[in-house]
Amino acid sequence: MIQVGVNGYGTIGKRVADAVAAQPDMVLRGVAKRSPNHEAESAVKREYDLYAADPDRTDEFEAVGLPPAGTLSDLLADVDVVVDCCPAGVGAQNRDIYDAHDVRVVFQGGEDATVADASFTARTAFETARDADAVRVVSCNSTGLARLLAPVAESFGVETARVTLIRRGGDPAQTDRGPINDIVPDPVGLPSHHGPDVNTVLPGVDVDTAALKAPVTAMHTHSVNVTLETTPTADEVRRLLADESRLFLIPEGAGIDGAGALKEYAMDLGRPRGDLWENCLWGESVHVSGRDLYLFQNVHQEADVVPENVDAIRAMATDTAAAESMATTDQALGVGLESRLDTDTELPDSITADD
Amino acid sequence: MIQVGVNGYGTIGKRVADAVAAQPDMVLRGVAKRSPNHEAESAVKREYDLYAADPDRTDEFEAVGLPPAGTLSDLLADVDVVVDCCPAGVGAQNRDIYDAHDVRVVFQGGEDATVADASFTARTAFETARDADAVRVVSCNSTGLARLLAPVAESFGVETARVTLIRRGGDPAQTDRGPINDIVPDPVGLPSHHGPDVNTVLPGVDVDTAALKAPVTAMHTHSVNVTLETTPTADEVRRLLADESRLFLIPEGAGIDGAGALKEYAMDLGRPRGDLWENCLWGESVHVSGRDLYLFQNVHQEADVVPENVDAIRAMATDTAAAESMATTDQALGVGLESRLDTDTELPDSITADD
Repeated sequence: MIQVGVNGYGTIGKRVADAVAAQPDMVLRGVAKRSPNHEAESAVKREYDLYAADPDRTDEFEAVGLPPAGTLSDLLADVDVVVDCCPAGVGAQNRDIYDAHDVRVVFQGGEDATVADASFTARTAFETARDADAVRVVSCNSTGLARLLAPVAESFGVETARVTLIRRGGDPAQTDRGPINDIVPDPVGLPSHHGPDVNTVLPGVDVDTAALKAPVTAMHTHSVNVTLETTPTADEVRRLLADESRLFLIPEGAGIDGAGALKEYAMDLGRPRGDLWENCLWGESVHVSGRDLYLFQNVHQEADVVPENVDAIRAMATDTAAAESMATTDQALGVGLESRLDTDTELPDSITADD
Repeated sequence: MIQVGVNGYGTIGKRVADAVAAQPDMVLRGVAKRSPNHEAESAVKREYDLYAADPDRTDEFEAVGLPPAGTLSDLLADVDVVVDCCPAGVGAQNRDIYDAHDVRVVFQGGEDATVADASFTARTAFETARDADAVRVVSCNSTGLARLLAPVAESFGVETARVTLIRRGGDPAQTDRGPINDIVPDPVGLPSHHGPDVNTVLPGVDVDTAALKAPVTAMHTHSVNVTLETTPTADEVRRLLADESRLFLIPEGAGIDGAGALKEYAMDLGRPRGDLWENCLWGESVHVSGRDLYLFQNVHQEADVVPENVDAIRAMATDTAAAESMATTDQALGVGLESRLDTDTELPDSITADD
């Protein structure tokens, strides 16, 4: 059993903790957090051992009735791998303490690629983690693009991919984030850094990206164009993508018109926190004109990297093959959406008691 | 066992169906729906018998691989009580078919009060349902106000309550609703109809309401003033409210600053669909100045009426006492939030992998 700790128990950390705890070959030894807020309380309610990430703040945990099991150092002494889910940039500051405890570490995509020996997605870069002391799971957007472009490149060849990323402004509880009432080019300089980030896990595929921020919180939306090297039909593209376990082709008849309905779908399925671990692609958006492929996909910024973190742990700590690891992760989490709805029906009823 | 059917499987209907299925003394015989969208599919995945609400559209269900168990009439033949969760106004149109099948019916607050023999909340009007053939659970906002004002009136006396309702524009998947980028007085004529609606379940309490719509989807927010007949301290008010099972006093140290964080809290607790069945009141907002009480509370428009529907069924179909019914409902659903966080701590970490 792989002994795993999670440092940082926010949006990503709490999901990674749950995912690790669900794996048959991993033990979640505990989670470390800086401040004792409602998320810290929820960790205790889930019976996770809670550690104080900042040893100078253990008294704050005790003051609110959440006495920590120890400090981050205590947690690191017990684990084979730590997953760093701290805010962007804080991970790099933590590198020294991880090295001091001689633990392998998985960083998140908010860190610079130089923080780790390799960047990671399970679909495209599993083997890069084999001998690494530290890997970085690329960001939610890069993960979503690599998952999409890898099978397209393998089957149809990619001359150039051009993607507009319409990004969510913040996560649902981040009320202090913008933008409000605007769509802001960010960064305004083109192309954006997202393309090169995709290349850290999918080298050799030419991809230009343009990114903006919108006043939404549920998901990112990608408007994708790929100039292919061949001329498949749209149905051939759909069938290829439908075979990928971490891609979900939204059926035309489902009445799912955006991120709100996608989250509703996930919550109706009983998904924890309404999480969508899969890229969500509109099947009817897939269009091929000559060698140009077009489609829309959504990426759940809180969730899509979670199975990737699990696979990164397994890639570093075992000799499990990529396909086997992904299958184990997916089965333990419940990744993989299937719908029998594939024909045109009406839009959903609007059934709500009046307010 | 009370045999229950649900007609209308949207925002409210699917939640009521789950709540009924969870009760120890009720059987969910099936759900009826007009169109076979992703919500219909989710009902089948939950192994609920799915009925076609419109007998002329059964072929649409068959066409998408969701053959119905029958029509609404077939469902009504098997139940003691039907819960009508159809869009506002459609319930009244359904009254004839319910009467023809001689079933008791629970309507939602989108219907006029005249649709039923009595209006209902469990806390204030349980006994009104005893001999009724039809009751109407009042709207989410009226439910939330009755739950709050009833204990305040009982303990401290209410001279006048004045409430500004800042309402959500639509539910999370309702992308076709407004307003966008505005806060719209609605209705602009004052006072709004919400006060009289509260009086259908809480007569004798003077309450004036003003309502607006805001471009949010998660919850309604109430800004409450009550001129009391006595002069309790703020702590006395807090203690009174904390004793009510369907009120949740948000602790000061939790780092919960709005609806986004409240939903995050509910999802971290593993609540189905992140539902908040309780009024959510900010404990630190409770303020008393002379005889004037002030506070903020949030109401989850998709969820707070759900336990009320369950109690309405039990009130009509059994001789269970109100307190016993509410306790049974709450235990089966998991209603009742408790937090050990009650002291000041910092705001939550913002821990998210960069996008």
